[in-house]
Amino acid sequence: MKGNITMNVKNKKVLVIVAHPDDEVLGMGGTIAKCAANGAEIGLLIVTDGSTSQYKDIPNLHEIIEEKKQETKRSADILGIKHIYYGKQPDMKLDVTEHIRVNNAIENVVNEFNPDIVFTHFDGDVNKDHQCVFQSTLVACRPIPGQKVKELYSFSVPSSTEWSPQNTKNIFMPNLFVDIEGQYAESKYNAMKEYKTELRKFPHPRSIETLEILDSAVGLQIGIKCAESFIVHRIIK
Amino acid sequence: MKGNITMNVKNKKVLVIVAHPDDEVLGMGGTIAKCAANGAEIGLLIVTDGSTSQYKDIPNLHEIIEEKKQETKRSADILGIKHIYYGKQPDMKLDVTEHIRVNNAIENVVNEFNPDIVFTHFDGDVNKDHQCVFQSTLVACRPIPGQKVKELYSFSVPSSTEWSPQNTKNIFMPNLFVDIEGQYAESKYNAMKEYKTELRKFPHPRSIETLEILDSAVGLQIGIKCAESFIVHRIIK
Amino acid sequence: MKGNITMNVKNKKVLVIVAHPDDEVLGMGGTIAKCAANGAEIGLLIVTDGSTSQYKDIPNLHEIIEEKKQETKRSADILGIKHIYYGKQPDMKLDVTEHIRVNNAIENVVNEFNPDIVFTHFDGDVNKDHQCVFQSTLVACRPIPGQKVKELYSFSVPSSTEWSPQNTKNIFMPNLFVDIEGQYAESKYNAMKEYKTELRKFPHPRSIETLEILDSAVGLQIGIKCAESFIVHRIIK
Amino acid sequence: MKGNITMNVKNKKVLVIVAHPDDEVLGMGGTIAKCAANGAEIGLLIVTDGSTSQYKDIPNLHEIIEEKKQETKRSADILGIKHIYYGKQPDMKLDVTEHIRVNNAIENVVNEFNPDIVFTHFDGDVNKDHQCVFQSTLVACRPIPGQKVKELYSFSVPSSTEWSPQNTKNIFMPNLFVDIEGQYAESKYNAMKEYKTELRKFPHPRSIETLEILDSAVGLQIGIKCAESFIVHRIIK
Amino acid sequence: MKGNITMNVKNKKVLVIVAHPDDEVLGMGGTIAKCAANGAEIGLLIVTDGSTSQYKDIPNLHEIIEEKKQETKRSADILGIKHIYYGKQPDMKLDVTEHIRVNNAIENVVNEFNPDIVFTHFDGDVNKDHQCVFQSTLVACRPIPGQKVKELYSFSVPSSTEWSPQNTKNIFMPNLFVDIEGQYAESKYNAMKEYKTELRKFPHPRSIETLEILDSAVGLQIGIKCAESFIVHRIIK
Amino acid sequence: MKGNITMNVKNKKVLVIVAHPDDEVLGMGGTIAKCAANGAEIGLLIVTDGSTSQYKDIPNLHEIIEEKKQETKRSADILGIKHIYYGKQPDMKLDVTEHIRVNNAIENVVNEFNPDIVFTHFDGDVNKDHQCVFQSTLVACRPIPGQKVKELYSFSVPSSTEWSPQNTKNIFMPNLFVDIEGQYAESKYNAMKEYKTELRKFPHPRSIETLEILDSAVGLQIGIKCAESFIVHRIIK
Repeated sequence: MKGNITMNVKNKKVLVIVAHPDDEVLGMGGTIAKCAANGAEIGLLIVTDGSTSQYKDIPNLHEIIEEKKQETKRSADILGIKHIYYGKQPDMKLDVTEHIRVNNAIENVVNEFNPDIVFTHFDGDVNKDHQCVFQSTLVACRPIPGQKVKELYSFSVPSSTEWSPQNTKNIFMPNLFVDIEGQYAESKYNAMKEYKTELRKFPHPRSIETLEILDSAVGLQIGIKCAESFIVHRIIK
Repeated sequence: MKGNITMNVKNKKVLVIVAHPDDEVLGMGGTIAKCAANGAEIGLLIVTDGSTSQYKDIPNLHEIIEEKKQETKRSADILGIKHIYYGKQPDMKLDVTEHIRVNNAIENVVNEFNPDIVFTHFDGDVNKDHQCVFQSTLVACRPIPGQKVKELYSFSVPSSTEWSPQNTKNIFMPNLFVDIEGQYAESKYNAMKEYKTELRKFPHPRSIETLEILDSAVGLQIGIKCAESFIVHRIIK
Repeated sequence: MKGNITMNVKNKKVLVIVAHPDDEVLGMGGTIAKCAANGAEIGLLIVTDGSTSQYKDIPNLHEIIEEKKQETKRSADILGIKHIYYGKQPDMKLDVTEHIRVNNAIENVVNEFNPDIVFTHFDGDVNKDHQCVFQSTLVACRPIPGQKVKELYSFSVPSSTEWSPQNTKNIFMPNLFVDIEGQYAESKYNAMKEYKTELRKFPHPRSIETLEILDSAVGLQIGIKCAESFIVHRIIK
Repeated sequence: MKGNITMNVKNKKVLVIVAHPDDEVLGMGGTIAKCAANGAEIGLLIVTDGSTSQYKDIPNLHEIIEEKKQETKRSADILGIKHIYYGKQPDMKLDVTEHIRVNNAIENVVNEFNPDIVFTHFDGDVNKDHQCVFQSTLVACRPIPGQKVKELYSFSVPSSTEWSPQNTKNIFMPNLFVDIEGQYAESKYNAMKEYKTELRKFPHPRSIETLEILDSAVGLQIGIKCAESFIVHRIIK
Repeated sequence: MKGNITMNVKNKKVLVIVAHPDDEVLGMGGTIAKCAANGAEIGLLIVTDGSTSQYKDIPNLHEIIEEKKQETKRSADILGIKHIYYGKQPDMKLDVTEHIRVNNAIENVVNEFNPDIVFTHFDGDVNKDHQCVFQSTLVACRPIPGQKVKELYSFSVPSSTEWSPQNTKNIFMPNLFVDIEGQYAESKYNAMKEYKTELRKFPHPRSIETLEILDSAVGLQIGIKCAESFIVHRIIK
Repeated sequence: MKGNITMNVKNKKVLVIVAHPDDEVLGMGGTIAKCAANGAEIGLLIVTDGSTSQYKDIPNLHEIIEEKKQETKRSADILGIKHIYYGKQPDMKLDVTEHIRVNNAIENVVNEFNPDIVFTHFDGDVNKDHQCVFQSTLVACRPIPGQKVKELYSFSVPSSTEWSPQNTKNIFMPNLFVDIEGQYAESKYNAMKEYKTELRKFPHPRSIETLEILDSAVGLQIGIKCAESFIVHRIIK
């Protein structure tokens, strides 16, 4: 097997729904780049601002949120994301936010962007915002007659997915693998470098070196050198 | 949503691996017809003769096996199956057949037909031949570097899958749904009618009326009128 | 097997605990009718009003709630439900309601009606109110010394149970099947027709035609023509 | 709660299917006694002789088998078992015995005794004979149209069930509890005392003192003083 | 095997994190006594006051809280607990308390006490405070580079763990067993007797007699006379 | 955290039970080296010859088996393994070998070596010999009164564990992590290099480069640079 397998996403609309800025890169930056390169139109919905809790005692919170938006923008440009939406929900507090409120925030964007394919968080993550985003995405994409979304996947995020208790309730068991060897992996790591406020030092999970090793390890499970992996929740053909 | 969703399988080679004649129709007759109609080349591997145990006290066993092969042929023609392979393993005895022997029987056909996509039984079925065929297919399609098989799915078979103990070890939890409303469902039921030796009276699971109801029920879960469902074991893109 | 199997519930008190009006019919309308016909005394507890969120921007909310109560009453009469209780919790907001508050709402009715047998929602449903009602029912019926409730079951609700992620955390795996062929199924569909505000067009899960197909499919799993299914949580004999 | 809950099994035929002599007492001796006392007709099928492997180097194997049959008979009399059947399969070798051969051994007795209710081993037990007996019982009682068996349960056996790896594949998760406080527990322990060849010294699981503690512990989970527990596999009403 | 196995915890710091006063005794009183006797330094964090909900309508709530603290103190002295911390979160309301607030309450104590080993509740317990404490402990002990906590375990609590639905999501499947026969068991029951406000009459799970039977039953699973059991969540060596 | 965490295994006897030569290195080579360096006495039991099936058409099979034994010896010397036992069961055929025969082969060595700690395969591996070895080890180490084995763990083997279907039945969910950074990892890779007949080219799972990446990925999950991981089946303290 040489070269990357082609993805069949030409003219498809792909929506990536995440809790916090940078989750989209950590979880599936290479796959986003590959989808974009193969002709998909990519939307990104970030449900919370990712800052209000983390920086709650900092006076210039507004500036930080603005800076993070700039990081997201630069990162998205590298990956080929066309549309960025903000869900404006409170960071690190989705567990005490009404489920229907988060549902609505996501449904609004699903209705506006009208995707064929949706990617989101895994609900076994230790991070409760991730869990809530998954659960609300599930509602927003429920298969009522006429539902346009035909594929629904979830991804893992280093420093959240592997820190949940490793039992059958929470373990990430992927069945879709995307070969990102080469340019797509490069784009992913470059996109991550734009998130300066989120990067940590190796061996922290949110370091470029860690991402490289994890992506290799995922690929080696299925005989290729570099991959991202996903759980298939629903494909309708 | 009107009309069936198009499947993207043009020029793909699809191999269906089953334990006994008629499992391919019961499990995924409509999907086979849809794949064929959308340009896939379909192979069918039947691992056992499906008769030696069932008819063991009957003097003209050879004739029955021959007759069943004719049923398979006529049914396959309706569905658009091009190649039929026989694994020649003992019917209803795979549980005491060496695993590597069944592995080899399947690997030989996988190597010869060289499929992109493989469908087989679910290993939670109450029928042990089904379990063994799944497990050996898994070995035959293991993702070593260079493995051509990029998609591996399993299907349920009425009167086997739902009769296993309904616990987390054995329950069938599909995540791929194929819309077979209309012509594909018709082909499936017509193909099944060719298996006269296997049909039973309603409400037995192996009756046309039961198949119609079950296919409707599967579809209604995801908002369409008639569907078959599968578990995604591995997709590599 | 001809005719329906007799249920042994004579003089037993059966309490059905649901989140919203119509869940009792969708989930177990036929079984309610069968229990009533076999001499049980049936109570129904509806934990929320089922309207405050759904119709929140409508000026005559109060009238809608009243109308829905009338639908419930007419439907209950068809099924043979004798007592209707309202839990008065906020619709679609149980996920942010204190667990002990919902526990209390249910415990009050359990203490008042004093049932032998309790049926409620499955906690794998995608609807969070269903999950919460299950969890609080579990507390209200916990097996302390002297607990009168000797049987606890949960049921599925079309358009909620099958829309959860189909994994081992959420899949509905029934082990109790009730044959409702004939009059009990008829009563169920007639009772559902009274819930005009909830009915949808086929192939939506909340249509009579869908219910008929799903009830057939459930029955065919166990060799009968029409059934409802349940998970046994606890039987004490 | 004083006194034992009455079981509703009058005139029902109950078949207990076990791998080895004494499993019926260890697993459900109290429940057998209670069923018998409440008017059920009890059959017992012991699938293997329980001795050929255990005593394989002993010259008088035949005498030992005969002695064990006498133990079984005396024990059965205490519990109220009316019919004892022997499946004549090889002890400790069901894992390499053809599945259909064990199926047939069980189907023959199911057809002859024609039970309404069947109890058997749990398939998560560390003992492979137990696993095989469960799996073949499942086939023998599969819910084809007209199947008379309406209830199927499994029980645990001390020194087998709790020694399997405690994971979601193998853990025993009971949902039916039978109160055996008093006379039924007494009958159980007396019946066990007849199996002199199987009893061990406390704290071995196969000692009377251990059984007493385990039965207490099971009961205390649900607020009573002494109970046996079961998994409900299928109840049809 | 005579005498108790020695635990290797000399000079280790062990932190026990519970939701309510007495959970530490019910869950692992004997193991605490054994750790202390073997040279560990024990800390106890009680996350809620355990009274505000239970006694909410009682005028002298403050006195009750004070009394319970005295019970905790006397009980802790018996077991050899050196440090008692209070998390000051609302009793029976952690399910509607922000996750990060509970995280912080626990992280503060983890940082202050700086344990090597942490024990906490099982997240399958029916009690939602237990679930929340587990989840926040998981966050507080997440394995970031440099994390000092090297062992993380959870325990069961009678009248909470066994009352959850017994399915693969919630069942307690222990893999660490601690032999507490003799003096450690004695200390446990004596410590429990200090919690006069929590003790109930046999056969309630919170009675000394019940604890004795349950501890015996746990031990007998692994061939010893009296034990406590735990789930290993993470050991790093 | 600098330097490796010390393991407390001084004077403990550790038995590693594998199906085929090289499984001990692939699965836990670094941990073996670390145990040996910390004062444990290590035994290795290889249950099959690992060659009769793989090389079945080769005339000089005997020489190959001999050569593989030499590889094992050289590899064992590097790791610090003191005793090598051979179980002499047929390679790749344990699935059709009587369970009690494999049990006996393992029990004999357990009785002779008399270990405190046992490591073996994970029973979710796609390789059936691995599954059988696990199951028989479980029997050989069952916790009867007086059982000396106090710790039982299983490990994963690249190219077997990750190729099983990734579902809750088969997924490897480790909870024990051993830091092997530095010398222990070096010993592992050097030991593997002695198994010339088993090494494959990168990116095959059985290549040194793959092992390095996988060991890094395992470590990074818990904040360290290089680790091996295990499932805790039973620890008794």
